[in-house]
Amino acid sequence: MDYLSKIRKMSYKELEKFAKQIREYIIDVISKNGGHLASNLGTVELTLALYRVFDPFEDYIIWDTGHQTYTHKLLTGRWELFPTIRKFNGISGYTNIFESQADRFGAGHVGTSIAAALGIEQGLKLQGKEANVIVVIGDGALTSGEALEAINQIKTLNSKIKIVINNNSMSISKNVGALSHFFDRLRTSKIYLEMKQIMKKTVRGGLEEELKRLKEALKVSISGDDFFESLSIKHFGPVDGHNLRELEEVFKRIKDYNYPVAVTVNTIKGKGFHSSEGNPEDFHSAGKFDTNSGEFLKTPGFISYSKAFGKTLSKLAEKDEKIVAITAAMVKGTGLSEFAEKFPERFFDLGITEQACVTFAGGLARAGFKPVFAVYSTFLQRGFDQLIHDIALQNIPVIFAIDRAGLVGEDGPTHHGVFDISYLRIIPNMKIYAPKDVQDLADTLWTIFKFPLEGPVAIRYPRDSEFGNFEEIYDKIKMVDLSKWEILNDGKKVAIITTGTITKNAINIAIRNGWTLVFARNIKPLDLETLKWVLKNHEYIFTVEEGSIEGGFGESLNKYGSIENIGVPDEFIVHGSRKELLKLVGLDENGIEKQIFERIERRSIYENTD
Amino acid sequence: MDYLSKIRKMSYKELEKFAKQIREYIIDVISKNGGHLASNLGTVELTLALYRVFDPFEDYIIWDTGHQTYTHKLLTGRWELFPTIRKFNGISGYTNIFESQADRFGAGHVGTSIAAALGIEQGLKLQGKEANVIVVIGDGALTSGEALEAINQIKTLNSKIKIVINNNSMSISKNVGALSHFFDRLRTSKIYLEMKQIMKKTVRGGLEEELKRLKEALKVSISGDDFFESLSIKHFGPVDGHNLRELEEVFKRIKDYNYPVAVTVNTIKGKGFHSSEGNPEDFHSAGKFDTNSGEFLKTPGFISYSKAFGKTLSKLAEKDEKIVAITAAMVKGTGLSEFAEKFPERFFDLGITEQACVTFAGGLARAGFKPVFAVYSTFLQRGFDQLIHDIALQNIPVIFAIDRAGLVGEDGPTHHGVFDISYLRIIPNMKIYAPKDVQDLADTLWTIFKFPLEGPVAIRYPRDSEFGNFEEIYDKIKMVDLSKWEILNDGKKVAIITTGTITKNAINIAIRNGWTLVFARNIKPLDLETLKWVLKNHEYIFTVEEGSIEGGFGESLNKYGSIENIGVPDEFIVHGSRKELLKLVGLDENGIEKQIFERIERRSIYENTD
Repeated sequence: MDYLSKIRKMSYKELEKFAKQIREYIIDVISKNGGHLASNLGTVELTLALYRVFDPFEDYIIWDTGHQTYTHKLLTGRWELFPTIRKFNGISGYTNIFESQADRFGAGHVGTSIAAALGIEQGLKLQGKEANVIVVIGDGALTSGEALEAINQIKTLNSKIKIVINNNSMSISKNVGALSHFFDRLRTSKIYLEMKQIMKKTVRGGLEEELKRLKEALKVSISGDDFFESLSIKHFGPVDGHNLRELEEVFKRIKDYNYPVAVTVNTIKGKGFHSSEGNPEDFHSAGKFDTNSGEFLKTPGFISYSKAFGKTLSKLAEKDEKIVAITAAMVKGTGLSEFAEKFPERFFDLGITEQACVTFAGGLARAGFKPVFAVYSTFLQRGFDQLIHDIALQNIPVIFAIDRAGLVGEDGPTHHGVFDISYLRIIPNMKIYAPKDVQDLADTLWTIFKFPLEGPVAIRYPRDSEFGNFEEIYDKIKMVDLSKWEILNDGKKVAIITTGTITKNAINIAIRNGWTLVFARNIKPLDLETLKWVLKNHEYIFTVEEGSIEGGFGESLNKYGSIENIGVPDEFIVHGSRKELLKLVGLDENGIEKQIFERIERRSIYENTD
Repeated sequence: MDYLSKIRKMSYKELEKFAKQIREYIIDVISKNGGHLASNLGTVELTLALYRVFDPFEDYIIWDTGHQTYTHKLLTGRWELFPTIRKFNGISGYTNIFESQADRFGAGHVGTSIAAALGIEQGLKLQGKEANVIVVIGDGALTSGEALEAINQIKTLNSKIKIVINNNSMSISKNVGALSHFFDRLRTSKIYLEMKQIMKKTVRGGLEEELKRLKEALKVSISGDDFFESLSIKHFGPVDGHNLRELEEVFKRIKDYNYPVAVTVNTIKGKGFHSSEGNPEDFHSAGKFDTNSGEFLKTPGFISYSKAFGKTLSKLAEKDEKIVAITAAMVKGTGLSEFAEKFPERFFDLGITEQACVTFAGGLARAGFKPVFAVYSTFLQRGFDQLIHDIALQNIPVIFAIDRAGLVGEDGPTHHGVFDISYLRIIPNMKIYAPKDVQDLADTLWTIFKFPLEGPVAIRYPRDSEFGNFEEIYDKIKMVDLSKWEILNDGKKVAIITTGTITKNAINIAIRNGWTLVFARNIKPLDLETLKWVLKNHEYIFTVEEGSIEGGFGESLNKYGSIENIGVPDEFIVHGSRKELLKLVGLDENGIEKQIFERIERRSIYENTD
């Protein structure tokens, strides 16, 4: 079905009906698959109106952070495939250039769209090609440095880019930053219109010319200076993002503009689904839920690593008032909600600003505090330079709580946290720990704060949960030796050295085969004493990690002896459930055992023929 | 000598004389040592006035990108040490927390100051401590994403930060971006003052109240909306940055402000030295020069890697109109001046926006072009996430020309490019090459463009030069095999595998000892065939690279056999000449040879006692 032709022929009444149908379809599928419900319910009308005016196959429409693109996907050839979204072998939850010509530039991280669009526009211009270049970007994404960098270059590049700002006053948590205040003001600036009326009546005589000039400035005199206009970008709005007629009118108006323009569109995140409208943070990246009650389908009795981290930190902060916590717009995702509530003055949400967060944490530490920056592994990539230049080089004690380390599941390759061990261990002064389970995460965090902090520390843990509850964990909390590896099984011939929670997938292998299992909580610095013992007493040694083999933990051991590395291969891993993906890369229990046996066999053949 | 007390007692006349003395001192020392002349000549009066009003030991003054801090250093206890600046064992050319209490937060990369200052301010507030928190930041640094991220968070944090904008209309190259236009407008906005006079005369009757409101908006109606005010930061200026009295007055005025404020100070880069005033880009990071003529002291007959790269690219671009080049405010530094002149429409300077540059390049490639982003190794760290998420994940063909890879010399640890091999080789789809000399750099670049580009490619080369000239190089230019390593010397027992220009330091060692020397131009993918030959035919194998051992090229080989790695150790390396630093880390010819012999000896002892 060619939905693009279809929507262009619809009356507004039919369109509204169709919008309802799309919404129901999205709610139905996402209730089963999980996904970014709230943001996608907010952009139904926006997408419909946009695609009546522009053509996603002829024009270049770049969607920032692909998780607002479900309607876009439905309209551009993926209606039937939609029930496979985020499933293994199904379509992606984000834009993906390998999935459709209409997905002009893939994105799972925020703030990349404007730079990508500017590049595409310059390329089209050099070829003398005519096409509209349009960006749809959330107000939350505008807190990110890359988006701001690119906006500032629009004028210099003589761009005619059209920026549609999806203003839902949310990033993932409540949006922060002066720009969000600016958008809030726009939302409520009725006074602007009233003042215009007053002015019309009072203009007269010799003042007229001056007043005409001044009128131009009136808007900003009321609602403050305009951010976009200050960067030489014409700014319209706000437009009601759920009024199809109004949206279409403004898109038509800007279509032929010969200069860069931004249009602010006010949308309601979660629009049209009672539970998500009232609670967009929960439904930002939603798990499966009941469409009637809006209740999430959860297995009771489990505790996530994020929650265990957040609760342990809160406990520590009760006794140590130097502990402060920082998030980049991920209050709930990183498990910091309790901390934020208990210690509001010691909690900082700086928006989607991973670069600034890292340096800000450095500043807090220089003022005598113990900052903990809780961040997803994949997003900390944005702060890589700051980790080196601001933190490690000055040996400033900041704790990096690295959540979603390893394979994250349905969010797929833009979100897998498989590079952190590799990119962290090359940084001098950095200490890196990877606990083996939820209890060990709590213990490790506990121990770190029991000693004076001497420099930067990273703790990594996966997007996962475990049977248990925090009270039990807290009851059993204990100090651990952060410099020693643990021999979990003392066996013969073969030794497996694991780090992080993948240890759980190796323990039974070691026991049933009578092999040694060493758990390496400390990735850096290494425990060379235990490593030497392993090397001396075993014929075959394997490392296992849930992270990239390339540059990973295993590779850091290879210089000490003949060791084979098992981990995530040197390729981008698709999306699917964590279980499916671990199996895919051979990191489930069977996979690890199989790899070990195969390599032992290969080695013995090689050695016998050599 | 307590210069801080001294300057506070001076009359303006005495201060002006002292400013002259400081300038002469800076010019004299930097003409001998090399350094950031132009930016430091621009901030003499600014620093003097600032330190008459604020106290660098009591208040928290954060200097963005420490290369504007020579006057700051002179006034805060480093007058006598100043002639050692940038020399091995001497003081740093940047702020350095280990050097002085007054250096509140070290920085060599731009745009970190505001985030650091906000962190420090929050820490002070939590402790109930009173102090002024002041940032001095160049207008060029305000193009960087981290600075913009932090500015946007000022209001949310209820900060009272004071931002002094050192507006010299330059980053390193001519400043770009809409903000720079904004500052240019401010520079020339006399019309603002005239309009204020007109308004005073015409105000009367019932309009008065309205007009009062409108007057507030007048400034922006003339010079455009105010960027800072749009982000809820009070903005003053411009102030003449070389008028001590005017500067002092405005600093006194903002001292007790209870809200965040930005003051734009117009300075002249290179002020007071004829040659640098007219030519600030050359004198940004200057080599040694003659103080009379302003001529740089150069050894004739040498060509830098940067120049060889830029000239080769220009030659290629003559015949291939799909080649486009991108820089992040480093036109000259990356050797792109010629390209920029010859192909202005295919050349893009996006300001100090490494994140945006990477994604922008991706956009250009998606529109059918062959983008080359020329960037210093240390600065590409800023685009790490974009390399992964925007380029490699989508396997987009972008060429990264990575200059200043390895030890950069006098700029020191903030600028050493020792991490790139480690952080690039962990990225799937990335190809990495490190030529062995200038000719090989030209050949490699030449070869890359002779084949269809299939995905991202990085070429790394050092801050160095070689005897020769481009005509000869271009005459000899030839295709090289990008998949094969080269056996430069076929020897026995010991094999050295080198990558990059450090190969030159190993060749004589190999020859005189009768060892094998293999040059690995391709770091990724490896040449496993040659590696197997090496492993089979040698007893001791060493890798040598000018880059971090941790995660480096050598480590990527260790899984294939018993190999020892020589490179930059896992610590931050100080500043000094390139020669001194290579010696320090054992990468000069003697150092490499010594390390090899020591390790062979250690191994044979170990093996005999085992």
